[in-house]
Formats: sequence, structure tokens, C-alpha cells
Amino acid sequence: MAKIKSIVHYNGSRYKGFQIQPNQITIQGEIEKALEKTFHKKIKIVAAGRTDRGVHSLGQVISFDVDTTIDIGNLPRVINYHLPEDISIMESEYVDDDFSARFSAKSKVYKYLIYNYKYESGFYDSLSYNYPHYLDIERMKKAVEPIIGTFDFSSFMGRDSNVKDAIRTIYSIDIKRDGRFVEITFHGKSFLRNMIRIIVGSLCDIGRGKLETDFLKESLEKKDRKMAGYTAPPSGLYLMEVRY
Amino acid sequence: MAKIKSIVHYNGSRYKGFQIQPNQITIQGEIEKALEKTFHKKIKIVAAGRTDRGVHSLGQVISFDVDTTIDIGNLPRVINYHLPEDISIMESEYVDDDFSARFSAKSKVYKYLIYNYKYESGFYDSLSYNYPHYLDIERMKKAVEPIIGTFDFSSFMGRDSNVKDAIRTIYSIDIKRDGRFVEITFHGKSFLRNMIRIIVGSLCDIGRGKLETDFLKESLEKKDRKMAGYTAPPSGLYLMEVRY
Repeated sequence: MAKIKSIVHYNGSRYKGFQIQPNQITIQGEIEKALEKTFHKKIKIVAAGRTDRGVHSLGQVISFDVDTTIDIGNLPRVINYHLPEDISIMESEYVDDDFSARFSAKSKVYKYLIYNYKYESGFYDSLSYNYPHYLDIERMKKAVEPIIGTFDFSSFMGRDSNVKDAIRTIYSIDIKRDGRFVEITFHGKSFLRNMIRIIVGSLCDIGRGKLETDFLKESLEKKDRKMAGYTAPPSGLYLMEVRY
Repeated sequence: MAKIKSIVHYNGSRYKGFQIQPNQITIQGEIEKALEKTFHKKIKIVAAGRTDRGVHSLGQVISFDVDTTIDIGNLPRVINYHLPEDISIMESEYVDDDFSARFSAKSKVYKYLIYNYKYESGFYDSLSYNYPHYLDIERMKKAVEPIIGTFDFSSFMGRDSNVKDAIRTIYSIDIKRDGRFVEITFHGKSFLRNMIRIIVGSLCDIGRGKLETDFLKESLEKKDRKMAGYTAPPSGLYLMEVRY
């Protein structure tokens, strides 16, 4: 028995999310099929983040057990041969048996990419979120200050989540503009379902001047999903890195 | 009668190239269909560059005639409503009647994006060219020096071109690395069919050390397609800008 950790890139556009579901095309489903073809037996994977439908990865981490010794240096190539073009294993290594891609994770970095222009771009369409109203970055930076830290993020939790408590820790939220792009980078211990997308939805309405800069602070205090902004679409969200 | 100039973004992955062809899905075909729905008559477009199958655009320019006066500020939105998600009009303006997106163009900027890593990325797959061998940027920079200028580029011309002469002018070729990405930016008066992709194919073999740095210079002098390198795939090529 040996435990393997792998980094996975994918374009989430075609998939109904990461987590395996009956009769749906999912990232987990595709990876487990490829592992079965590679190792000639069913292998269950554990992932650091169960990304939603349409969310992309440049840093998802999975772990799984194998009962054979294999050439780990060549493993990504072998698995990728059995994967669709839009999912790839980028690195694989042996890790301690008690490692779990999910439970050993110390923190995660997500990026949200906004194409801030009056018209949607045919090129960036599935790779970003087109927000047509000009965003004032300084307003957005000011707005996120009060939500950096450890809080009950109930107001920023997708309605269909079933977690015990909604207390989460955000270490940083960096916001920058590069031409028509606005890039928001979240670093946190972990995140609730849809939490980043709800923060981004609220932030866009703050950045355009429709909501006040203290809106996120006030939403946080209310601890009620109805008090925060809309959920920004998944196409702009990227899981960038998982730290252990 | 009025002449309109528009900038078009597209992800070329799904299309058999720009130029209209019977029974094929092409960018030009989709745009002309959308214009017919917008203006209720057949409209023929002229494009600055007839990009090949799989090539992307962040700056293609088209021009066309209309015989109605329309709200030009809202035109992209109206045309985009009739276009597929992966093609968009980004800007439109009225121009002089003698303007031609093709013949008025003074120069063009193309970018070629290489994902220089041992494994292909599921995310970047259709957005770049995965070259698995490490590229030495300094070697590549040295190699392109002799082909900057006005020369007969017959050695770098796709075999199925039917141009009268192969003399073209390259103003600059910039090469830079950003992590796993190598980005090559070409600025030239105009380019032959496949010219950039053949130069990039040769450059990759130079960058990995398989070919000498004077290979491009020698290929150029031979004026024979057989003397240059392979044709790099279209997925890494972007039409970035057309200057008038």
C-alpha cells in the first residue's frame, strides 16, 4: 500500500462539478475512471476542494491509495493518457500514509477573474465573469477589510450547504486591476460552499457604487444569507493552490 | 451607405478557421449569419487576418457596409445576441467609405503562447501549445535576430499558399518567460500562411538545443519550405492587434 498525492488542472466548463454524482459527468468521475484504467482496479480519490460546476483548477490536490509500486515520475503521463483533454495530472508524489488531500490541507488560495468591460468577450467567456459596470478597486479594497479574519460567515453560505458551523478564517483578499481584468485573490483556511462567489457578487455591486463600502461588514454581522449580495458565476473562479 | 469597423474576439477551438467554406463552421460564417439577423439582409465582411483553424483572436478587425443608419454605440450588443458564446464584437465605429479591414491595415501583432512544462495542462490545453522540453530563452532571442527585417520568407510559408511573392517585413519578435509560459510576440507588416507557426516550431527546437541558433538564418537563405522546422499547432496563436 502506498499513498499518492497529485496536483490536477482542469477547465470546469464541461463538468457538473468535482464531486461524483450518478449519471453526471464530473471531474472526480473522470479521474476515477482514468485511475481504474491505469491500475486495473477501482480507486477512490479524496480532493482538497470539491469545486462547483464550471469552476476551474490550476492547483487542485487529490490523494489516493495504490497497492502496487509504480514509477511515480511517469505516472501523470500514464493517467493523463486515460483522461479527457480538459483534465490533467500535473505532478504526483508518494506521501505518508496518513496524508489526506482534504484533511491535511492548511489553507487554500482561490482566484476570481472578472472581465470588466461593457461587452462579454468571446475568448474569455468561460474563463472569467463579465461585469459590465466599471469597478472602483479602491472601494472594493476598503470593503473587504472587515471580513479578513475569523468570523461566522453564515451570510455568505450557499443555501444548500449542510455544515455544522459557518465559522471560517480568511487570511487575505487581494484585489488588483490589469487593464480590463480585475483579479481577486482569496487566501483562507477553508471556505463555505459558494462563499467566495457570494463575496464577489457583493463586491461587484460595491465596486460599481450601487452598495456602500460597509455592506460586507453589515452582511457579516446579520449572519443571514438573505443579507448578502448575489452569487457571482462559477466561470471566474479558479482553485489556485492548496497549502499543507 | 455607411462603412463599419469592428473588433472581434474569439476562441478558435471549435471553428474550421476564419474564412467561410461550404458546409463548415467558420468564424466568418457565424458573423455573417449574425449580421444578416441584425440587418435583415446578407452582408459580406472583410477581415484583417484570415486566421487558421484553432487560432484565437483578441484583436481581429472586420469591416462591412450597411445601408441603414444605426445606433453604433449599441451595435456590438445587438450583433452579439445573434453570435455563439465564443465569438464577440467588442467595439464598433463608423469609418470612411474607403476603409478596408484588410487592405488598410499597416501592421499586425500576433502572440504565440507556449506552456513549457513536461505535461500538458487540462486548463491551458486549447489555449496554448504544450512544449515539454525546457526552452532556453536567450538562445531563442539570438536565433530570431537575423529574421527581423524585410526578406523572402519562402522557407516559412505553408505549402498550400498561393501568394505571388513571399517577401514580408517583420518589425520585432519579443520572447519572454513567465513561469511555465513562454510568450513570443510578433509585430510585422503582414505574414504568410503558417509563417508564425513555422518560425515557432523551429524556435522550439532551437530553444531546447536540438538545433543551432543560426538555423533560422540558414533556413531563410535557402528559400525552401523543406529547410525550416515543423509547424507549431494553432492553439497557441492569438491575433492580438491590427494597426491602421
